[in-house]
Amino acid sequence: MPVTHRYGDDSVTLKVRSDVLDLQLAHRSVRRFAPAGVSDDQLEALVAAAQSAPTSSNLQPWSVVVVRDPERKARLAAWAAGQRFVEEAPVLLVWVADLGRARRLAERAGVAVDAADYLETTIIGFVDTALAAQNAVVAAESLGLGTVFVGAIRNHPDRVAAELGLPPHAVAAFGLAVGVPDPTENAGVKPRLPQAAVVHQETYDAAAADAHIASYDDRLAAYNQRHGMPAGGWSGRVLTRLAGPQSMAGRHRLRELLDDLGLPSR
Amino acid sequence: MPVTHRYGDDSVTLKVRSDVLDLQLAHRSVRRFAPAGVSDDQLEALVAAAQSAPTSSNLQPWSVVVVRDPERKARLAAWAAGQRFVEEAPVLLVWVADLGRARRLAERAGVAVDAADYLETTIIGFVDTALAAQNAVVAAESLGLGTVFVGAIRNHPDRVAAELGLPPHAVAAFGLAVGVPDPTENAGVKPRLPQAAVVHQETYDAAAADAHIASYDDRLAAYNQRHGMPAGGWSGRVLTRLAGPQSMAGRHRLRELLDDLGLPSR
Repeated sequence: MPVTHRYGDDSVTLKVRSDVLDLQLAHRSVRRFAPAGVSDDQLEALVAAAQSAPTSSNLQPWSVVVVRDPERKARLAAWAAGQRFVEEAPVLLVWVADLGRARRLAERAGVAVDAADYLETTIIGFVDTALAAQNAVVAAESLGLGTVFVGAIRNHPDRVAAELGLPPHAVAAFGLAVGVPDPTENAGVKPRLPQAAVVHQETYDAAAADAHIASYDDRLAAYNQRHGMPAGGWSGRVLTRLAGPQSMAGRHRLRELLDDLGLPSR
Repeated sequence: MPVTHRYGDDSVTLKVRSDVLDLQLAHRSVRRFAPAGVSDDQLEALVAAAQSAPTSSNLQPWSVVVVRDPERKARLAAWAAGQRFVEEAPVLLVWVADLGRARRLAERAGVAVDAADYLETTIIGFVDTALAAQNAVVAAESLGLGTVFVGAIRNHPDRVAAELGLPPHAVAAFGLAVGVPDPTENAGVKPRLPQAAVVHQETYDAAAADAHIASYDDRLAAYNQRHGMPAGGWSGRVLTRLAGPQSMAGRHRLRELLDDLGLPSR
């Protein structure tokens, strides 16, 4: 019954189903990988799935760098908060929000693409990269692979860009570690907020939604205890994570670093 | 053979497969809907799929507003470049990048969440909203529904926020029209760039990648002709779309409007 795990609540049921839904509901982050690798054929399928995701005005403003080289993975892992699974995964996909391709088209054509200077276009870059990468996640799971996103790749986007030889106007949006899951990893399907906390009918009702947070704090605390994770619920974690620039592992500099990489936020 | 359609190229094959991949490869935007509606049970499943997507530090920084009211849909459609399918779809899901929930937690706890002031956190909001929404897209297709994203909801984020009663620190990231596809719609699987144009091994090679754009321009021009769309390939479309603020339908103001809505881009 994957949906009960998804909400940490035995009373939740879904009245429709599909194999795809079952796969999605069973999603978990995989941070420990079995020795088996990921084949080029599998990666080709993941990229085809990624390219099948919607993209604003068919701009396709992303690229992906396949990193298998152990030393390069080790350097990227060190910059990404030293997370070991970045180094241990057989493949790290670095998803790049890429306005460089369009800028190069414009340069060759001798025309301006001033829209690329605006925050809106940077947001399109990140959003379309995310749509694509999520399709790759689901495709990977359908092939028996496991994944985890690496947002910490944005701790040092400048170093990552240099390491991967990114051209101007391109930035690593996030990494995705991919491999065969190690079945001994003590990890489960993490409960999410109740639907009533995130879904609104016609208009947004903050008081009604927020009334469901307390029960979720309890469910997540129970989950954390069961999986040997630091004690506590959701609210405290959120407040710690968003406390201030000191809680951002360097990412408070993102706007400045995007500027330097040729993605201004006008 | 959906992958040949995905690339507009009969020579492309995939050496691995799954039912999920087949579904993803067959994705197309649906802009014409049959009279049948979308049930609450189906929507519940779509949201469960969305909540099953990864989210940075489990922040879950998004909400979704379900719009079925014809007059509200008509207003939203008018602000979203007058696109008729926004009004005609039985359901419009408005996906909200929502830092309001965390800000309200902080207010009730009497603590600061200054990290929410930074562009990095806004980007997390948009990215996590996109990961969630893409899972909903795939889930919808697995249930026989069709969808199309409505980025034009960002043409007037201020009006949309007022219409939906969004609290401070929340912005409509994009809409998603959902319904049963009208089988008579003349639309196909849109070809994407060849994999060689977007995938890089270990480091980014712009010259090697861009060498594959010309053949794609030809394939997309053929597709456009076949489906009665305006003539031309990809490169010209991209340059027109990104020409400058005049090509952005008002979205060049996004940064200023985000500021007004309580999502500063520090």
